[in-house]
Amino acid sequence: MNKPAIAIDLGGTKIKIGLVQGNTILAGTAIDAHSGNGLQERLPFVAAAIQALLAQQNLTVTDIAGVGMAVPGIVDSVQKRILSIDKKFGDAPGIDFESWCTNALGLTLAIENDARTALIGEWKFGKAKAVDNVVLITLGTGVGSSAVIEGKLLRGKHFTAGILGGHSVINYKGTVCNCGNTGCVETEAATWSIGAKVKAHPAFAASTLANECLIDFESIFRLANEEDFLAKQMRDESLDVWAACAINLIHAYDPEMVLVSGGIMASSSYIIPYLQQKTDAHAWTPWGKVKIESASYPDAAALLGAGYLVTNE
Amino acid sequence: MNKPAIAIDLGGTKIKIGLVQGNTILAGTAIDAHSGNGLQERLPFVAAAIQALLAQQNLTVTDIAGVGMAVPGIVDSVQKRILSIDKKFGDAPGIDFESWCTNALGLTLAIENDARTALIGEWKFGKAKAVDNVVLITLGTGVGSSAVIEGKLLRGKHFTAGILGGHSVINYKGTVCNCGNTGCVETEAATWSIGAKVKAHPAFAASTLANECLIDFESIFRLANEEDFLAKQMRDESLDVWAACAINLIHAYDPEMVLVSGGIMASSSYIIPYLQQKTDAHAWTPWGKVKIESASYPDAAALLGAGYLVTNE
Repeated sequence: MNKPAIAIDLGGTKIKIGLVQGNTILAGTAIDAHSGNGLQERLPFVAAAIQALLAQQNLTVTDIAGVGMAVPGIVDSVQKRILSIDKKFGDAPGIDFESWCTNALGLTLAIENDARTALIGEWKFGKAKAVDNVVLITLGTGVGSSAVIEGKLLRGKHFTAGILGGHSVINYKGTVCNCGNTGCVETEAATWSIGAKVKAHPAFAASTLANECLIDFESIFRLANEEDFLAKQMRDESLDVWAACAINLIHAYDPEMVLVSGGIMASSSYIIPYLQQKTDAHAWTPWGKVKIESASYPDAAALLGAGYLVTNE
Repeated sequence: MNKPAIAIDLGGTKIKIGLVQGNTILAGTAIDAHSGNGLQERLPFVAAAIQALLAQQNLTVTDIAGVGMAVPGIVDSVQKRILSIDKKFGDAPGIDFESWCTNALGLTLAIENDARTALIGEWKFGKAKAVDNVVLITLGTGVGSSAVIEGKLLRGKHFTAGILGGHSVINYKGTVCNCGNTGCVETEAATWSIGAKVKAHPAFAASTLANECLIDFESIFRLANEEDFLAKQMRDESLDVWAACAINLIHAYDPEMVLVSGGIMASSSYIIPYLQQKTDAHAWTPWGKVKIESASYPDAAALLGAGYLVTNE
């Protein structure tokens, strides 16, 4: 058995840290991201949390294979730099994470986009085990994606291949996205965008959604279930957006399986059958049907994949 | 120098046949496709045209390396079968082309999707020479695509990867496509669909487009240039559809270059700068800008690529 790795999942709200060995998270902790203040000032706290986690487990850095970091942005996994990330972590492209890892912890670093590490987790340890052609879609604050084609994780020349499914244009006359383009999947149906979309609807005041403190997909699916007309419309439009996203990814990468993960998947019992039915009907796959499934490790896959990269790349 | 190959470009109107050696078409001919009658009944005429071409060049089949066939559909290049194709050639999936090639000509066969062979032609002999990450878009009767990623032609597990860019959903509430899905690139802006779209517009009768015998992109670009309001609207919407298509393909495959080819490219002086400007502004490429260029061999690339496959795969 390999030594365990330290895996870091850099989220906009929480930075999750796990002690990972194979398919198991032996122990974990988390600290607030305070991402509005940038990432540099959080790194000493990340190092301290890692040291505390090791001490709690009676381990030292000599027991650890290295650090694997999952990042919600475009990552140069060779130079170990973040190339592009949400402005909340605007200072991240300037940070030399490898030096930080060496200096603060005495450990080597692997760094990768978080949708890719999540897919690695599912591909090595979850439902996509032994599936050599698989796409992951994460539906949450944003919409992420990643792809394994013919047994190889797709990265591309400039590290962007596979991970921009949330910025697939599915409504070219639609709403402007925070990326500047029009009609991306994310701007049409993700947690960051749906509240504004609902409130801008002319019928908003007449909907029970107007009584909600927080408009998100939990409230939309719940009130749709109670037959609120606007919640039903927003639910159904969002499902069609995600179906278009899934079809575009199937057409792009020719997978056998699409795994769906992310915060919105609390409503997976509704989402998965809908996506299966739409992709069965409309993805052009003369060989058969692509399996649409919810992910095995919606919370842990990114950590498992980051740990895998430490010991296998 | 390798022996020359016979290349066949199976179009819906014409079946083009070329004697191909490297980047040169030594001689060529074409026969009507009569595609409404299926393909089986055309094969004796294809064989006769090949024999006539060889005789005209004072060659026999022993001088030829083999036959390369470019097909506008989904092709199993290993089993050498057509998996899916427009219903005009509805009998094609049942045809054993390899046996036909052996029996009628005494030659081996390579068979591939035509957008892939066109990209091979551009990649080996044209503007994409030595570019290891490149996407081709063909704008014509339909919209085709193909991709080379990290020096490898993308085929995918079931032979559909890269070639379905024309069925990327860019308008999920839009028009129903002939594939059954809604809002594909093709149904929003291709030669087969644009006439019906123009005629269905409420302002059609008031437009000078109503005086045209044939409504296609030639007439649309021409009358837009003469300030016809509907022609301008249709031109601009079509450009935005193709820009969304290009952005989706850039996001999917992370290329350095996008080549654009196909019949519509008679208006390339207008189309290429527009696509360059839109992808510069809206494709998420933190490393730099993707070059958008018109193809080197808009008419011959598919033949050159099919010939290349014969002698190199």
